[in-house]
Amino acid sequence: MLASIENIKKDIEELSKFNATPSSGVTRFSYTEEHRKAKKYIVEEMNKVGLDVYEDAVGNIIGQRSGTNNNLPVVMVGSHFDSVKNGGKFDGTAGVATGLEIARVFKENNIKTKHPVAFIAIVEEEGGRFSCGLLGSRAMIGKVAREDLEKFKDEKGISLALAMKEFGLNPEEYYQAKNWDKKIEAFIELHIEQGPVLEAEQKDVGIVDTIVGIAVYEVGIIGRADHAGTTPMTMRADALLLASSIVQDINKLALEAGEGTVATVGKLQVSPGAVNIVPGKVDFTFEVRSKSNATVENITGNIEQIIQNKCKLQGLQYKLNKIMSIKPTRLSENVISVLRRKASKLNLNYKIMMSGAGHDAMFLNEITNVGMVFVPSKNGRSHCPEEWTDYEKIKLGTDLVLEAMLEIAEA
Amino acid sequence: MLASIENIKKDIEELSKFNATPSSGVTRFSYTEEHRKAKKYIVEEMNKVGLDVYEDAVGNIIGQRSGTNNNLPVVMVGSHFDSVKNGGKFDGTAGVATGLEIARVFKENNIKTKHPVAFIAIVEEEGGRFSCGLLGSRAMIGKVAREDLEKFKDEKGISLALAMKEFGLNPEEYYQAKNWDKKIEAFIELHIEQGPVLEAEQKDVGIVDTIVGIAVYEVGIIGRADHAGTTPMTMRADALLLASSIVQDINKLALEAGEGTVATVGKLQVSPGAVNIVPGKVDFTFEVRSKSNATVENITGNIEQIIQNKCKLQGLQYKLNKIMSIKPTRLSENVISVLRRKASKLNLNYKIMMSGAGHDAMFLNEITNVGMVFVPSKNGRSHCPEEWTDYEKIKLGTDLVLEAMLEIAEA
Repeated sequence: MLASIENIKKDIEELSKFNATPSSGVTRFSYTEEHRKAKKYIVEEMNKVGLDVYEDAVGNIIGQRSGTNNNLPVVMVGSHFDSVKNGGKFDGTAGVATGLEIARVFKENNIKTKHPVAFIAIVEEEGGRFSCGLLGSRAMIGKVAREDLEKFKDEKGISLALAMKEFGLNPEEYYQAKNWDKKIEAFIELHIEQGPVLEAEQKDVGIVDTIVGIAVYEVGIIGRADHAGTTPMTMRADALLLASSIVQDINKLALEAGEGTVATVGKLQVSPGAVNIVPGKVDFTFEVRSKSNATVENITGNIEQIIQNKCKLQGLQYKLNKIMSIKPTRLSENVISVLRRKASKLNLNYKIMMSGAGHDAMFLNEITNVGMVFVPSKNGRSHCPEEWTDYEKIKLGTDLVLEAMLEIAEA
Repeated sequence: MLASIENIKKDIEELSKFNATPSSGVTRFSYTEEHRKAKKYIVEEMNKVGLDVYEDAVGNIIGQRSGTNNNLPVVMVGSHFDSVKNGGKFDGTAGVATGLEIARVFKENNIKTKHPVAFIAIVEEEGGRFSCGLLGSRAMIGKVAREDLEKFKDEKGISLALAMKEFGLNPEEYYQAKNWDKKIEAFIELHIEQGPVLEAEQKDVGIVDTIVGIAVYEVGIIGRADHAGTTPMTMRADALLLASSIVQDINKLALEAGEGTVATVGKLQVSPGAVNIVPGKVDFTFEVRSKSNATVENITGNIEQIIQNKCKLQGLQYKLNKIMSIKPTRLSENVISVLRRKASKLNLNYKIMMSGAGHDAMFLNEITNVGMVFVPSKNGRSHCPEEWTDYEKIKLGTDLVLEAMLEIAEA
């Protein structure tokens, strides 16, 4: 029993047509016409193979297939079906196609598992429209508040609640999406890697053991804006000179930590920002990600100390603010173990790896046993029209998820 | 014969009232109502002491006093009377007040010099409105083209030519401002230092020997925008990491060169500039100023080499563009020598120094013997509402300019 590369390709290509920006990658925001068309396609495909299909209170689409003992919790497979603005056609969609194709294999081979199984297409993971990422999975574990649906708005000022209502959902019933406590035996998500590692190491798939923890800080370095011609080098308080040395320090600390730890200064703004004025102020962000929480805390602590010391030494001031912090998520040892065995059985060239990005799997891990399978991203590109994964690799990843699902559901 | 501190203070305070931003420093752009009012004040003060006053074709105001031999070239004193946006009340205006006060001393003491003398208030030095700095002095030496008057526009899209016309000048006659070849014996400008050196060294005045040369470059460092979570440190092409190391290099080169050489990265922009994206592109400017042209060329050559080497080593691309280059201006040995002698005679605590900023004196140096006198800027501040120079120092500087003028004009 193996997945069909043609079916997977068809699913991904069909879904990519439900797209608000056809000439510039894929844009499929939640609660839009593109969402409605994608939903129609997914529901139809699920119906074709006899799944029991429903849309939950926030828009997640679930197709269930009975087991021999329907009192047992379900084994679930899937991913999200929204996209970022001008994104690619594989992010999320690849994992949705995995679910649809596995459901076809079950139907064609008339497979009866002990546990019931479910296939899910999760809504609003990217946060592309409302800046409220991972909404679908958070709703499933009860981590959405009613006020969130008012607070988060799209560019036109339309709130999540209003958009849901216009889409045909009742925002007052959002809490009903939390329906899964002790009802899921395991959840497996196939997702594109969105990084360059699998391709560089010529792997077929990655088996994720940890989703990294992350800490994000905002820093302001306050020096003094001076005339660039008349202020001698030794009498300056150049905020950019100091900030740029901290950029170097941050990079060095991540390199030294090793083990996949990353640190990034992605945003940096210079004031007043004129050719002939010594920078008086620099605002920048830094984020640190690691599979070890101690490493994240160690590095961010070191950075804070370095900023303090350098500012004191040079007579500059600073402000520092932690704006986000999530601890690393260790996925299920059991699911990982099953995935490893099955990968060996299928002769896949696999790698145990961490995920540097957040995923719905992160939140579902709070209520069930979670596994994730990564497939290689060409040149590591993602969230852009160039995003690409060879269909062959998605097929191999789907075969792996199928095998693991069969074992966990006790076929 | 000494200058009156009260008169100087009155001139500067009265001129500061012709101001488009009364609660936020001084804004007196060219060819505006504030310009018109300042002109009226200057012309009236010049008329009071019997000068022969006229406005040239671009708006410079010149008040002349006959000598015993009016075939001899004039000895001229003055500075500019426009300001930057939200600037201070001393930049330019201090030197205009110097001229007005010396004219009063000449009148009160009935001084007759051999050479005729002239006092000038120069228009549009800052380029605050049209980004066309040093217009007044450039017009005097014939370095303005007719198309410049169309090309340079203010924020509302009004061209220099249109603004001149609305002010009552005829832009077609702009070339008539070039009227000074061999007609100026010497030009002396008093100006605030706009830097912290004189105050730090507790000097009364500075005598400028050189206006620094300057080279300005635009640089683009082109790396690759990657996901900050999924891209390992060793697989990145982080444009900000590389650019920030170049910021350090530029600073180091200027410090090593010494002798007042300065180098500044004042503008730096990161793309795409998101917290969780490795910077794909950084655009920055750098400028190098030195009294030695060889030093400017040496440093900019080194910087270019460093950028090339680092980009090659890291696999990044770059663009580099020289956008401005002015050679150092050595002022008149004769005028400097007179100023030194007179400073000693007046018991002034003076310093021979360079000017890190450009001035009208720079262009007038091409057609005559130029000297500059600097007076201390409190905390080195300039181009801001906090700009301040003690009136006592402006009075001492004015005494110095007066003495030098008398000698050069052969009183």
